Amino acid sequence: MSAPVVTFLSDYGYRDEFVGVCHGVIAARCPQARIIDLTHGIDLGDIHAGALALRAALPYMPLGIHLAVVDPGVGGDRRAVVLRTPEGPRFLVGPDNGLLLAGASLFGGAAAAYDIGNSPERLASGSRTFDGRDVFAPVAGALAAGVGPAELGEAIDPAGLVELELPAARIDGDLAFVPVLSIDGYGNVALADLDLDLGSAEALVVETAGEQLSIPRGTRFGDVAPGQLVAYVDSRGALALAVNGGSAAKRLGLGVDDVVAVRLR
Amino acid sequence: MSAPVVTFLSDYGYRDEFVGVCHGVIAARCPQARIIDLTHGIDLGDIHAGALALRAALPYMPLGIHLAVVDPGVGGDRRAVVLRTPEGPRFLVGPDNGLLLAGASLFGGAAAAYDIGNSPERLASGSRTFDGRDVFAPVAGALAAGVGPAELGEAIDPAGLVELELPAARIDGDLAFVPVLSIDGYGNVALADLDLDLGSAEALVVETAGEQLSIPRGTRFGDVAPGQLVAYVDSRGALALAVNGGSAAKRLGLGVDDVVAVRLR
Amino acid sequence: MSAPVVTFLSDYGYRDEFVGVCHGVIAARCPQARIIDLTHGIDLGDIHAGALALRAALPYMPLGIHLAVVDPGVGGDRRAVVLRTPEGPRFLVGPDNGLLLAGASLFGGAAAAYDIGNSPERLASGSRTFDGRDVFAPVAGALAAGVGPAELGEAIDPAGLVELELPAARIDGDLAFVPVLSIDGYGNVALADLDLDLGSAEALVVETAGEQLSIPRGTRFGDVAPGQLVAYVDSRGALALAVNGGSAAKRLGLGVDDVVAVRLR
Repeated sequence: MSAPVVTFLSDYGYRDEFVGVCHGVIAARCPQARIIDLTHGIDLGDIHAGALALRAALPYMPLGIHLAVVDPGVGGDRRAVVLRTPEGPRFLVGPDNGLLLAGASLFGGAAAAYDIGNSPERLASGSRTFDGRDVFAPVAGALAAGVGPAELGEAIDPAGLVELELPAARIDGDLAFVPVLSIDGYGNVALADLDLDLGSAEALVVETAGEQLSIPRGTRFGDVAPGQLVAYVDSRGALALAVNGGSAAKRLGLGVDDVVAVRLR
Repeated sequence: MSAPVVTFLSDYGYRDEFVGVCHGVIAARCPQARIIDLTHGIDLGDIHAGALALRAALPYMPLGIHLAVVDPGVGGDRRAVVLRTPEGPRFLVGPDNGLLLAGASLFGGAAAAYDIGNSPERLASGSRTFDGRDVFAPVAGALAAGVGPAELGEAIDPAGLVELELPAARIDGDLAFVPVLSIDGYGNVALADLDLDLGSAEALVVETAGEQLSIPRGTRFGDVAPGQLVAYVDSRGALALAVNGGSAAKRLGLGVDDVVAVRLR
Repeated sequence: MSAPVVTFLSDYGYRDEFVGVCHGVIAARCPQARIIDLTHGIDLGDIHAGALALRAALPYMPLGIHLAVVDPGVGGDRRAVVLRTPEGPRFLVGPDNGLLLAGASLFGGAAAAYDIGNSPERLASGSRTFDGRDVFAPVAGALAAGVGPAELGEAIDPAGLVELELPAARIDGDLAFVPVLSIDGYGNVALADLDLDLGSAEALVVETAGEQLSIPRGTRFGDVAPGQLVAYVDSRGALALAVNGGSAAKRLGLGVDDVVAVRLR
């Protein structure tokens, strides 16, 4: 039988001991658990970025427990929760701020939810600033060890869970105004879901910073010459802009939430 | 039976192959070892920061071997050592520069110590610049595989181990002059141990850069409005300053070793 | 019996979910595989730096599968390959751009090679921009699970594999003009292979930026006073320049590919 899998995503970064501490807390409860770090480099408190990374990663993960902590409201009134998805089932553990539901939506949403704010697994601590250590990791470890979620928290109505609203495109005449959803480490620029058939047009006509660009469409960076822009569907499934061998974000001066205009016809 | 646990903290960073090499060296000696990376993002050569992170993480780690390498004196006269703590027992492996003893103090100190500079496990190497690979990881791997410390080095007197002196507060009349001990990735500012009962005062009165601030005390960031300062006991147990949703270090212009004045009455 | 080992090196960085996704893909195919991350902090697209890190790390790794992805030509015409080395045997998986062969050369080169561009393990995907997820990790996972390479790709002639040419020193009279090969996170400067016996000279005479420096030779940083330069053979076996407790790269204003003149007599 395989070891239980716990995936772990956060904005804890790589400077402090926060990630390692959570690993230890999980290992203490379930020594045989295999922990897969998705990333801990999410921009501080950026729930949108965390949700996008989680949604991109989870389809490739074995069945298991998915711990995700991007939690600017730690210690505040937001609930700490476990979600159970109908498909799998899989368990998601983290703050109730939309992050988890974005991941759960890949597996049919939340069939059940539990408030773990007063979990018997909660660690006593003078501080209310590190729920990853004190609440989420202990519960994830217990789930990995086979404890049922009903023993770890109080059942709540999944309909009341916080949903995340990701930036969306707005259509106005012949133009779609499309926010930048995310930018990866290579400087590739992913756009918000356009929900439009761009048809067989060979180029995407984009207006940004007063400039109009006709960007050839491709399926890979090498479809254009080095240093040239290309529009493509990225590995997360989003329409994206890249520079072959360079950074589209730098080239176009774009950051997350900036809006580009895409000509529809 | 659980796999042996080796925790690993260093200032090796994430750019070079140093951390991965040490993992391989351990795995070659103990294939079943579970390695938990605490962090490898300690500021280069910052023994204080390494000791604080180690002290914060070890209480949450399963019994095992604790490898810690922040070693500005690598290849110099400082000794390479293994410590055994009375509680556990746990083994700590690394340079004798105060880093390990800071961790061992959580488990009763060092009941025994061994100089592993000439360990039979030491890898022959033309260089004396990567003791993590050549001395510490081989010894940690051997300990994980069940080899006793007396076979890995020469017993030395634990009383002679180097102790670390962390910055401390200095009281002068109504003021405590308190050095900044550390700043985490969120910009939260931890202060040196004040060793004073701050009583039931609802605010901490702090002077820094000529400015006097009355900072409300709380147990979580959300105890103050977004953008406001709060004084709290952090997840490591230190008195700390934070900005709800922001960086106290930036707000107050504070860095490690800077001193703030705290009004005592 | 030990768990199969998969080592993993890339330029994916620590911000995005790319590394975690590949871990999941491998774990799904071989739940018992032990994955050792060598580093994912290779400079974007820097095949040379990737090859140097791989060559430095692999001698310390247990037998296994070595996944390495620094792949500026992803989706282009470069082949995706598996190499089998005569010693071990070990398998290397990644792009055919010289990266893998640099690692394989440590174990006798490539005794066999397979083009995995159309591997049955290849994941169907709308994009051709993340071969780590779609091609390399699935094949590495299958190899770890015991599938033979001939089932994963088409045998090709190892003689046709792309070889990497690393920067080399050029001798002119009494001077060797030596490019900087790499700079580590501490600022230590490694020079290209000089292939010369420097004999018993006690100092290396180096000219850089119009300045002539006599740098004492040592085997460890502590052979010179704090703040002083030292020339030594580094942990990768390269002639290197360091500042005891500082950064030689900063002190000398050197970057990768910059050339320093070394006086030979």
